[in-house]
Amino acid sequence: MTPEKSSDFVAYLRAHLDANAFVEGANVNPASVSDGTRVSGFLPSLLLRPRNAADLSLILQTATKLRQSVVIQGGLTGLAGGARPRHGEVAVSLERMRGMSAVNVAEGTIEVEAGVPLQAVQEAAQAAGFMFGVDLGARGSASIGGMIATNAGGIRVLRYGMMRDQVAGLEGVLADGTVIDSMLGLPKDNAGYDLRQLLVGSEGTLGVVTRAKLRLRPAPKSERAALLSLGSVDDAIKLLVFLRERIGDLLAAFEIIFPDVYAGTIAHMGIVPPLPPGAGLYVLTDIQGQTPDADLERFQAALGDAVEIGLCSDAILSSSGREFETLWAIRDGVSDCVYAQGQSYGFDIGVPLNAINRFLKLAADRVSAIDPTARAFIFGHLGDGNLHYIVETEEGADIAKAVLTAVAEAGGTITAEHGIGTDKRDWLHLCRSEAELAVMGRLKRALDPAGILNPERVISTSAAYGNKTLLP
Amino acid sequence: MTPEKSSDFVAYLRAHLDANAFVEGANVNPASVSDGTRVSGFLPSLLLRPRNAADLSLILQTATKLRQSVVIQGGLTGLAGGARPRHGEVAVSLERMRGMSAVNVAEGTIEVEAGVPLQAVQEAAQAAGFMFGVDLGARGSASIGGMIATNAGGIRVLRYGMMRDQVAGLEGVLADGTVIDSMLGLPKDNAGYDLRQLLVGSEGTLGVVTRAKLRLRPAPKSERAALLSLGSVDDAIKLLVFLRERIGDLLAAFEIIFPDVYAGTIAHMGIVPPLPPGAGLYVLTDIQGQTPDADLERFQAALGDAVEIGLCSDAILSSSGREFETLWAIRDGVSDCVYAQGQSYGFDIGVPLNAINRFLKLAADRVSAIDPTARAFIFGHLGDGNLHYIVETEEGADIAKAVLTAVAEAGGTITAEHGIGTDKRDWLHLCRSEAELAVMGRLKRALDPAGILNPERVISTSAAYGNKTLLP
Repeated sequence: MTPEKSSDFVAYLRAHLDANAFVEGANVNPASVSDGTRVSGFLPSLLLRPRNAADLSLILQTATKLRQSVVIQGGLTGLAGGARPRHGEVAVSLERMRGMSAVNVAEGTIEVEAGVPLQAVQEAAQAAGFMFGVDLGARGSASIGGMIATNAGGIRVLRYGMMRDQVAGLEGVLADGTVIDSMLGLPKDNAGYDLRQLLVGSEGTLGVVTRAKLRLRPAPKSERAALLSLGSVDDAIKLLVFLRERIGDLLAAFEIIFPDVYAGTIAHMGIVPPLPPGAGLYVLTDIQGQTPDADLERFQAALGDAVEIGLCSDAILSSSGREFETLWAIRDGVSDCVYAQGQSYGFDIGVPLNAINRFLKLAADRVSAIDPTARAFIFGHLGDGNLHYIVETEEGADIAKAVLTAVAEAGGTITAEHGIGTDKRDWLHLCRSEAELAVMGRLKRALDPAGILNPERVISTSAAYGNKTLLP
Repeated sequence: MTPEKSSDFVAYLRAHLDANAFVEGANVNPASVSDGTRVSGFLPSLLLRPRNAADLSLILQTATKLRQSVVIQGGLTGLAGGARPRHGEVAVSLERMRGMSAVNVAEGTIEVEAGVPLQAVQEAAQAAGFMFGVDLGARGSASIGGMIATNAGGIRVLRYGMMRDQVAGLEGVLADGTVIDSMLGLPKDNAGYDLRQLLVGSEGTLGVVTRAKLRLRPAPKSERAALLSLGSVDDAIKLLVFLRERIGDLLAAFEIIFPDVYAGTIAHMGIVPPLPPGAGLYVLTDIQGQTPDADLERFQAALGDAVEIGLCSDAILSSSGREFETLWAIRDGVSDCVYAQGQSYGFDIGVPLNAINRFLKLAADRVSAIDPTARAFIFGHLGDGNLHYIVETEEGADIAKAVLTAVAEAGGTITAEHGIGTDKRDWLHLCRSEAELAVMGRLKRALDPAGILNPERVISTSAAYGNKTLLP
């Protein structure tokens, strides 16, 4: 017998779930109030902890019937407010779902439950002679379920793609309790619509990822990093094209750091700068290959020629694992440095390579028109057209509008990797057409007819459902 | 003013499209009656040829309003009956949409209209120092639009993924005429649901692909192929794992050919066999790398060790571009040989590597129980778990049921790359759960409310719409 009234919600679930599934009132972890943005939402009065897809199916089915909104929580490292609870929402955490299979060596895959943190997957892969293709700073806490739901990116997208590209099989639960088991995960499978793609990147608004079969990559046998000083972004783009032509897909990352961010990071870390500050731009790039000595020679020769023809003025190449780590530590240190400044607002925008200068000029002009004292810290994944653009200012709302509008005018996306969540929802129209937004609404209605699943994330309820009465 | 009656369909369109958009009656190319299966459908009395997305939008919007079913046609090379017209359908061909941009060297992309054949993309990529990641035998005719709609595969999936993985940007038209322009094609873009994924692999039932921005790969600087003789499928799986461990993602293809198919192909081609017939199994594998001499050394050493430890008994390595082509010509010759036999039925099934033997045993037993004289020709992309299983028999329908049921029992997919179309629609339930089929139906209803777009492909109208009245 299913419940009829909203007040029956907990009572009904209590009869069907184990006692550890319920965390209530004062027992709810205060961390559940927010995500990686540290902006507080409402602390939920009820947090549910399903053990598996069947538990979650019951929860969502009941929520749909009673029109009880739920917010799904993973590692709470998101940067768009997607997991930040709204008033009246029941939180559902996948923290008890941490099962992991052994690596399937023949397939090159591993099966994990949604609550498993990224680092656990990376370590299991490495122990079996593989690597996992996505890496990001929050690896210790970010959960695989959340990373799939938000299609996480990071520093290796250039070579291995986004989280979507790592998902072989997927299990998920829809708002009405339907369990989608697409865990087979064959490299080729064209039997009907690929339902996995629907859940990846939907930020938990079309369904909840509960389990995945992840694709692993052969571990590289050689890794070398290089830090380079260049004159400008234009030169960096030329260097990217040059390196791609010379070393092809040995290239595994191509990061840029603006000079003031480089100098600040070096100072913040208190280290001797590997390259002197004062250049126009810094690039951190690396290779991953299968033929150590020969790969290194090719990389070295390509970098030497790049210096020779003036694409970069100086280059340091790592000659040991320790030097490799040291160079990457600078890139990893950038965020610490930037967020140690005053009040700041971060944007992770994406622009076509040929529009990056246009965006930088537009954004700089508009930001300084609003707040002449504002400072922009710029770094990011140039190889993917993805810049982290952090503005230190007190004028957050106006600056957001200025920066995101500049992105749109330069033909880019307002979020390359963090997603829309709650915080960028009202800006989505800047880079998506009315037709696209309308189709997103049709999908939302088709898969979550009562609008209970992560509502108001990605698209607003009114945009998705209009005046239509939601299901009773 | 939009038309009200079905008879107005052509009249209305004639007022809005150019004269070359209409091909009628005796002028309709007889080839439009079928696809690569050569099974005849109904020759359409009207074939429409839109010039662009706007033309197609008008056609589909009108068709939805009047409930006129349409079938979308590309290069007519499909192998599942998806483009084969049914009675009363108007055919829409994208053959006039053949525009292509120059290669964007900085991004590594190219923009093409749906009607462009694969080979044109391959050649443009090569001329600009890139390669295109998907290759298949029908490259001269298969259109990019059709390949995206069917998520085509081929011999390089192991390394570069399916067609889905080559799609950076996409433009498509939905059944109600909505034009989705997602051509931006940034490597990272998480602004809302990824609508591109919805159209890729939907076989034209959720929308029609009109244009794409395709991702290109750095051209390999070294290519070497090897033909090997082995004892069994088990050895081939061990060899695959061994090579992946030894040469990582240098590995770019891993094909198997059963011994009778190898012998038959050699005989059919009238060539001297590079390796003597009579082994348990033949493997054709190759590498693509960036460091020619060193890559070759590694490949050679790995193959030598594989022979040494008994994973294979004999190996021939190409030592020139010509020898590379000669070895691949054998693999390409397999289809010609197999289809030169008597009446045959082909299946492109996918099974997890650890279930391949189980499938082979089950299928062989059941096929011979139905037709003791039946012969099976087996070859395919072992690296992806994808076998082409061709049965020479007169008992097509019973054999299909037997083979596809065996696949399902072995936990595989009834179609790894050809898709469902019309021909496998009634078998889809063998490898997809009721829940999955129901969600596919919800998507179909949400995006094609009148059920006019490639109807009865992938899912039947009754399964998708049940007893609901379709839109007027």
